[in-house]
Amino acid sequence: MRVAVIGTGSAGQVLAAGLRRIGHDVVSGTRDPAATAVRDDWSGGELVTFAEAGRGADLVVNATGGQVSLEALTQVDLVGKVLLDVSNPLDFSQGFPPTLSVKDTDSLAEQIQRAHPEARVVKSLNTVNAAVMVDPARLPEPTTIFVAGDDAEARMLVRSVLVELGWSDIVEFATLDAARGLEMWLPLWVRLMGTLGTADFNLKLVR
Amino acid sequence: MRVAVIGTGSAGQVLAAGLRRIGHDVVSGTRDPAATAVRDDWSGGELVTFAEAGRGADLVVNATGGQVSLEALTQVDLVGKVLLDVSNPLDFSQGFPPTLSVKDTDSLAEQIQRAHPEARVVKSLNTVNAAVMVDPARLPEPTTIFVAGDDAEARMLVRSVLVELGWSDIVEFATLDAARGLEMWLPLWVRLMGTLGTADFNLKLVR
Repeated sequence: MRVAVIGTGSAGQVLAAGLRRIGHDVVSGTRDPAATAVRDDWSGGELVTFAEAGRGADLVVNATGGQVSLEALTQVDLVGKVLLDVSNPLDFSQGFPPTLSVKDTDSLAEQIQRAHPEARVVKSLNTVNAAVMVDPARLPEPTTIFVAGDDAEARMLVRSVLVELGWSDIVEFATLDAARGLEMWLPLWVRLMGTLGTADFNLKLVR
Repeated sequence: MRVAVIGTGSAGQVLAAGLRRIGHDVVSGTRDPAATAVRDDWSGGELVTFAEAGRGADLVVNATGGQVSLEALTQVDLVGKVLLDVSNPLDFSQGFPPTLSVKDTDSLAEQIQRAHPEARVVKSLNTVNAAVMVDPARLPEPTTIFVAGDDAEARMLVRSVLVELGWSDIVEFATLDAARGLEMWLPLWVRLMGTLGTADFNLKLVR
């Protein structure tokens, strides 16, 4: 598939590399490709503008920071596209731990869906660190990943990518509003990262 | 230990029975003992008023519904007491799924602590169903339980009760404000209960 990863921060870079590893044709969308290309932390790969990124993509991945996602995505052509949203509405403006800029009765995923009614938004992978997203086998045993979205076909496409990445225990929610629960896991996640001293962890749902 | 379980709903009853099973002297605090005693769903055990419940207790457990906890606890003597808060601020007034009446920048546990500055509040067990709280072995493999509180001695006392109940993977947070993360797990928990069709589940933290 042709995959456009929107955002070139560390999560976007790890995701692009991980999706390339499993054989996809990946471009990274960034505000200013020339500026990104010369950044010290840029690890390489095809760079295009936000506006170019959506064209011809079978899957668009929102890996921008949650506080800028809505603005960045206004520049991306998402009509008819499956948008995998891995972002979290973390607000670090008051320091650590971050708070959530949207929660409980709404979610960032739903805000994105409302802003792009012709996109098919699927929330997934936001519950783990980028390194775990693309390599769940780095953890000592299989863990659980969630998928939430209103469109069954879009969920299926995301699920196939998850399987390719190595995920096996995939719990699916048939409505995007379950993203509220997935995003509200983050306040516990950030505290666990502090207590455990690592971002290399995930939950395994035991039932 | 003498344990006072505040609240006689299903969670309070299951907790009282579970704490009695491991050898504690348990009383249940209720608004009106005579009325509770004749309730169809009342499964037995010593009933006392909220006001009597705190007297002589080594541990007080808040098992009231999150929407009435603050009001109910005003009647309980909590001075110097360890208060294990298992409640969740679930607001069902708009139907299912519930929302949270406090979140993100505050928590019910912290509200209780502020209302009772001389109590030593510890948040724990709120992340699982009552049946799992008192019998973690009902799940097919060991799972994780969290403890959050400002007072180390109080956390230790709660931890000892958790061990008696069968918990082995106990993750501790040294400040009560981690309860924000623990309570914000609930929106995902309630959706998982719907999707899995059971409340018999918990997360195992894989790291």
